[in-house]
Amino acid sequence: MPVGGGAPVSVQTMANVDPHDAAGLSAQIARCAALGCDLYRLTVPDLAAAQTLGAVRRTSPLPLIADIHFDYRCALAAIEAGADALRLNPGNIGGRDRVQAVARAARAKRVPIRIGVNLGSLEKGLRADLEAGRTTVPEALCASALGHLKLLEDEGFRDVVLSAKASDVETTIATYRLLAERSDCPLHVGVTEAGTFLPGTVRNSVALGILLAEGIGETIRVSLTAEPEKEVRVGMEILRALGLKPRGPAITSCPTCGRTKVDLPRVATAVETALEAYAAKAPRKVLPKVAVMGCVVNGPGEAKGADVALCGGAGEFVLFVKGEPVGKVSEADAVRKVMEYVAVL
Amino acid sequence: MPVGGGAPVSVQTMANVDPHDAAGLSAQIARCAALGCDLYRLTVPDLAAAQTLGAVRRTSPLPLIADIHFDYRCALAAIEAGADALRLNPGNIGGRDRVQAVARAARAKRVPIRIGVNLGSLEKGLRADLEAGRTTVPEALCASALGHLKLLEDEGFRDVVLSAKASDVETTIATYRLLAERSDCPLHVGVTEAGTFLPGTVRNSVALGILLAEGIGETIRVSLTAEPEKEVRVGMEILRALGLKPRGPAITSCPTCGRTKVDLPRVATAVETALEAYAAKAPRKVLPKVAVMGCVVNGPGEAKGADVALCGGAGEFVLFVKGEPVGKVSEADAVRKVMEYVAVL
Repeated sequence: MPVGGGAPVSVQTMANVDPHDAAGLSAQIARCAALGCDLYRLTVPDLAAAQTLGAVRRTSPLPLIADIHFDYRCALAAIEAGADALRLNPGNIGGRDRVQAVARAARAKRVPIRIGVNLGSLEKGLRADLEAGRTTVPEALCASALGHLKLLEDEGFRDVVLSAKASDVETTIATYRLLAERSDCPLHVGVTEAGTFLPGTVRNSVALGILLAEGIGETIRVSLTAEPEKEVRVGMEILRALGLKPRGPAITSCPTCGRTKVDLPRVATAVETALEAYAAKAPRKVLPKVAVMGCVVNGPGEAKGADVALCGGAGEFVLFVKGEPVGKVSEADAVRKVMEYVAVL
Repeated sequence: MPVGGGAPVSVQTMANVDPHDAAGLSAQIARCAALGCDLYRLTVPDLAAAQTLGAVRRTSPLPLIADIHFDYRCALAAIEAGADALRLNPGNIGGRDRVQAVARAARAKRVPIRIGVNLGSLEKGLRADLEAGRTTVPEALCASALGHLKLLEDEGFRDVVLSAKASDVETTIATYRLLAERSDCPLHVGVTEAGTFLPGTVRNSVALGILLAEGIGETIRVSLTAEPEKEVRVGMEILRALGLKPRGPAITSCPTCGRTKVDLPRVATAVETALEAYAAKAPRKVLPKVAVMGCVVNGPGEAKGADVALCGGAGEFVLFVKGEPVGKVSEADAVRKVMEYVAVL
């Protein structure tokens, strides 16, 4: 799973299960992989967790990134156990000898390191500058990331990804624009502490959408106060929205309005869920385009562009296949009928 | 509620209840207004619906936009009944006499008209050009909008808002960039048939985020196959993410990870819901900043910037007020305690 160097933008998430629970981690990795996740990060707070990482790694369909805080022995143990990458801030692990040891071990196993700074854990000196008004948040975050980077570069280690996250959209955008200008490293882009599902999804989509549209960002992590599976779904949709991933099982469906005489949100969501389950089982198949439309004003026009379409009437749908009406279906039968055609197209 | 001319970007949505159900419309308008909605659109498919609009208008806290398709008599009746604006495509109402009649009535009552085109209802000529490869979708949508605009300008009517919606993000962005270049009208920006809640929220946030960040868009409508209240919440969050609305009841909260030992999504969502209810009752109050953090790595740092913060430990939280710890609270008491401080700050 290459990051940078022209590779497609990848989607990552982070475990929310106990780092010593191998079965729980493996199950979550499988669910995330089925949704399109490319990379999976888990915290390694102690040596036992490094052992768990090793056990999980043997069957994991995804590369694993070990998240290290403060303890360089956890970094060494994670590399030894088979971690595919580390997230570690070399300024926080206790001096040059330890940075050297980690850099040497990582280089020997060709393990890249992500440096990840954020406002909550900014160094004291930069925090003081910030509080005294001598610098701005984007400048301070960028300086912090580049300071950590220098420690690795001083050891001749260059396989580095950078991130510098703020919890608001405008600061995030300004910070990554600076980082992209001042460094050649691939960037891991994200908003930190973005909040609960709805506002967090919006903030991540706006920030990552704007940055990716400018060509900034080689890998993304959507942070939500919600399960990692949701983070993956949102991350995939951001890439799809920008044409950076092929369009997935998402469907075209209209907002309901006073003209709608079917339970459109229910049917559309059910069709989407069925398509996702189908896509997870046949990951290589190009999915047909599916539309679920509520009314006669825009429905037939939009339905023409879809391979399979439901177009709502009074309590029932007209089913279109390749633009031609093939019959009426009840609300109860709609999902099953759509999936019959999806399977053969 | 001015649109354009330097006014703040407004958020609108569209009714999904029967346009003859005055009580249902009034209740939905009140819910949308409490969430921050600025404008409310409803379809007027017949003369009875125009009467309903008139009845609803008398107590509505929001301006009402009558959505007209094909029948100019509905437009005249809606204006007469007190509609604050129309959405109508003058090329679709049956000839110059009718366009003149609508323009005259709208001017007399100073009712603006939004012209709203989308791919599903493109004129035959443009559709043929598109299918023959003589034009592109953004060019065709833009030409359609400007063609309708000319019909109103020919009658000397200039109080017009334009929209031209596609169902994918890249086409939407390209189309609105063209419209902004080729017209001085305020733009109503949106993605049509954006899909169910999760993908629709992402697509709208990416498209509208990119356009608004470029200064394109005077009013927005998020289209979701979901209730209008969700559209308003997403629309408000997009504007907040870009600093175009003051930050509302949304909280800062971290993604959960393997370090989290509290049910953070549940507590964070409950705090947010309580804040929303509080904000709806006291719309003019500036809300304190609230953070709900799960772990000891970034929690205390982020909590310092918040007026009230919960910082998770093992099954309980430390409560911070203005950056200082004031005591421990159980998960069960956390929301109540936060709201006690919110009420007095």
